[in-house]
Amino acid sequence: METWDAIRSRRNVRSYSERAIAPEDLDRILEAAWRTPSAGNQQAWDFVVCTDREQLAQLARVFRAASHVARSAATIALVAPKSDDAQMRDLIQFDLGQATMSIMLAAADLGIRIPAPRRRARYGWSTSSTRRRAMRSS
Amino acid sequence: METWDAIRSRRNVRSYSERAIAPEDLDRILEAAWRTPSAGNQQAWDFVVCTDREQLAQLARVFRAASHVARSAATIALVAPKSDDAQMRDLIQFDLGQATMSIMLAAADLGIRIPAPRRRARYGWSTSSTRRRAMRSS
Repeated sequence: METWDAIRSRRNVRSYSERAIAPEDLDRILEAAWRTPSAGNQQAWDFVVCTDREQLAQLARVFRAASHVARSAATIALVAPKSDDAQMRDLIQFDLGQATMSIMLAAADLGIRIPAPRRRARYGWSTSSTRRRAMRSS
Repeated sequence: METWDAIRSRRNVRSYSERAIAPEDLDRILEAAWRTPSAGNQQAWDFVVCTDREQLAQLARVFRAASHVARSAATIALVAPKSDDAQMRDLIQFDLGQATMSIMLAAADLGIRIPAPRRRARYGWSTSSTRRRAMRSS
């Protein structure tokens, strides 16, 4: 798909078909994620793909606004270190934003509709306790 | 350009040709910016394009790591409110990251190479005093 079409066709959706996403499509979306630039190239992120229905249901309970995760064909959890340093925290949030946009456009390019993340959900996923929980879903 | 080619061809560069960027190309890059999703659709951002050589030189002095701005054909300053609320600050940083990625990919699609922002520079631009300074450059 042309880049401009991907940029324009990206939409936030929260209802999904039952169709699974091909592994090679997930790989491409993840490659777009890790190709994203980051502050000082620190890449302070892990991208955890969850496709197991029961694990998606568990992941959906991480935060009250994440119920759509349970119905998704796949969810990528962005897991990042928690920092009390305001500047480091800014850098991490900025980089996660960049990675999220890469993921959304790579998915749009493949005709896969995904929602923008609910922001509070993302906070939840960034905590260390959730990090463990998310990692178990991979 | 195919989306995947844009994602793969995006590179950080800090040396530039003398060639001006066509106004319609700048418009397209800005449209990609404002099409970016934001937390609660708050769009807490202004995108300020600077193409005037003297104003670019002034903008380059906003932060010590921004010297390449002076040599750019155009620079887009992302101007956002400053917040002391940690959660709001996270949301803003995340959204600015998403917008930056949109801008970079839209530019890559047009064959325009741009650097990822130096992060400290971005902080400078986010302050209210710099907001005034950046706005005067528009």
